[in-house]
Amino acid sequence: MTTLPASMFATILKHDGYSGTMTGPVIENAADWLTEAELPIPEPGPGQVLIRLRTASVNPSDLHFIKGEYGQPRVQGTPAGFEGCGDVVAAGKGAEALQDLRVAFVAAGSGAWAEYVVTQMQMCIPLRPDISDDDGAAQIINPLTAMAMVDMAKEDGDAFVISAATSQLGKLMCSLGRDLGLKPIALVRRTETVETLKQLGAAEVLVTTDADVVQKFADISATLKPRVFLDAVMDQLSEQLFCAMPNRARWVCYGKLGSDAPTLTQTGQLIFMGKRIEGFWLTQWMMSTPPADQMRVVTEVQARFADGRWKTDVSERLTLRNLMPNLAAALKKSDGKVIITP
Amino acid sequence: MTTLPASMFATILKHDGYSGTMTGPVIENAADWLTEAELPIPEPGPGQVLIRLRTASVNPSDLHFIKGEYGQPRVQGTPAGFEGCGDVVAAGKGAEALQDLRVAFVAAGSGAWAEYVVTQMQMCIPLRPDISDDDGAAQIINPLTAMAMVDMAKEDGDAFVISAATSQLGKLMCSLGRDLGLKPIALVRRTETVETLKQLGAAEVLVTTDADVVQKFADISATLKPRVFLDAVMDQLSEQLFCAMPNRARWVCYGKLGSDAPTLTQTGQLIFMGKRIEGFWLTQWMMSTPPADQMRVVTEVQARFADGRWKTDVSERLTLRNLMPNLAAALKKSDGKVIITP
Repeated sequence: MTTLPASMFATILKHDGYSGTMTGPVIENAADWLTEAELPIPEPGPGQVLIRLRTASVNPSDLHFIKGEYGQPRVQGTPAGFEGCGDVVAAGKGAEALQDLRVAFVAAGSGAWAEYVVTQMQMCIPLRPDISDDDGAAQIINPLTAMAMVDMAKEDGDAFVISAATSQLGKLMCSLGRDLGLKPIALVRRTETVETLKQLGAAEVLVTTDADVVQKFADISATLKPRVFLDAVMDQLSEQLFCAMPNRARWVCYGKLGSDAPTLTQTGQLIFMGKRIEGFWLTQWMMSTPPADQMRVVTEVQARFADGRWKTDVSERLTLRNLMPNLAAALKKSDGKVIITP
Repeated sequence: MTTLPASMFATILKHDGYSGTMTGPVIENAADWLTEAELPIPEPGPGQVLIRLRTASVNPSDLHFIKGEYGQPRVQGTPAGFEGCGDVVAAGKGAEALQDLRVAFVAAGSGAWAEYVVTQMQMCIPLRPDISDDDGAAQIINPLTAMAMVDMAKEDGDAFVISAATSQLGKLMCSLGRDLGLKPIALVRRTETVETLKQLGAAEVLVTTDADVVQKFADISATLKPRVFLDAVMDQLSEQLFCAMPNRARWVCYGKLGSDAPTLTQTGQLIFMGKRIEGFWLTQWMMSTPPADQMRVVTEVQARFADGRWKTDVSERLTLRNLMPNLAAALKKSDGKVIITP
């Protein structure tokens, strides 16, 4: 057993519970939501492991969560951060098999933005040696979400729509769609990113600031007949695009990057065209998908990172100790992940 | 074969196709959408019958349709009206079995607001002699919608929510829900109708103009846990009530009585709570439900009207020749159907 220090440095939540707001995954100042603390090293209970952090990532869901806008209540004083990668330095009863392994993890007990993390063994995936620590820090939430959502889209035809396609998750879904012989239709905000998305595998790329974007989308939609819209934006443009999709289309919401709330302008789309609006949450997928199916997905994810089909683009590296003053600015850089090291 | 006149009086559509608007099932002046005409008697083709009208009804879907807001395009010059009751006076090849029978029908070729109507034999239901012509005129669209939607609600628990509960359809669903041992939660606009709905079978009745309606609904929802909201209103209050329902709730839209378009204020309801928004259309149900299941429903509907468990409340009687100037005013009377006779 590794000798552990008496305490650890962590970035912790300032608030409890839910905020009742829905302002999206953006922050102006990390100090509104987080503070720094020196905490006792947490102890792993039965079925749990203690992990010494190598890398943690910042996902949109982390920002929703620290602001009290996520599907789980905050616990004040607990470290923030859902996802990371590190070494198992202690294991509770029943979790001994993971001792000393390098794992990707989702934090279920204490958060990932800390020198040490406790989580359930089921929330850990042992990492192949050919996966980097950067890729390890973003191995679960985005890749599993991408695999699960593209699987769902595939059941409804070969074309599907992705908003915020330059996000890490968007890029994973584009290349996965292409590899499966599907036709991803990518929505981006900036013209400069069109070529990147096409090279990644998008069959069509539309720029949302284009004045004709709805008409262009309607034309593409009439040809490719996408039936699933994987949407992280959920604004009025999303609603217009949904209305331009063919009958039986599903508007699957998994994030809220848009600042305006969409109004449902055409009830007939739901009644006469058999369309529907629903959500996707990885936590629910993990609870409702049989372990063998999850394991197949996890294995495929590691294979894709190991052979370079997928990679984590890093936009900024921060340490736990310089996270607070620099997080808001780092998040304004697009097209990559903020990676945190101890 | 009955001797037929050379022509017939009919109320016909003034416009073609769709209007592109969604202003709801209300009209200020029938002359905006309809005109009177003397037309040749239509001829039944193979599989069709010619029906001499006894009674026709006015459904919200008729108003959506004549305004170009329904899921099927208008054909200018064709009689309006989806539903009625009458005698089969001529039958095309293959439809001879219906000759001389009194039937309830949905008009698929020419509309019901005419002295004679042609429709497919599959759209006709021979009527038991103990069903009145008034009940015959409203035997298909509302009753089958009620049966199909309450069946759907029943699969998701024993409580469900009905908006516009004083409509004919709302009343059918309340009493059907009670008879099936379910707990209908009825939403009404006027306090005077609360007792009627309770007597019909509503477990709870809420008045939508009550300032505390959302809180009262949230309390009831926490206790009864309704998972299906059968909504003909689709306004912002509908959205608030949907947000107050428990996880996995379904907002099932089948009409648009509300004048404002609802804004989706809480994306998290879809993502984290597994809720969804969808539509119900009887035409789609009829196309996707096996004939034997439909026959079971049709038989049950007639039994309910024959023994008095269901009845059609008539708010006003009009004739084809005084329909145009009086329709808008007749529709302003609530709590019953407008019945049209030749």
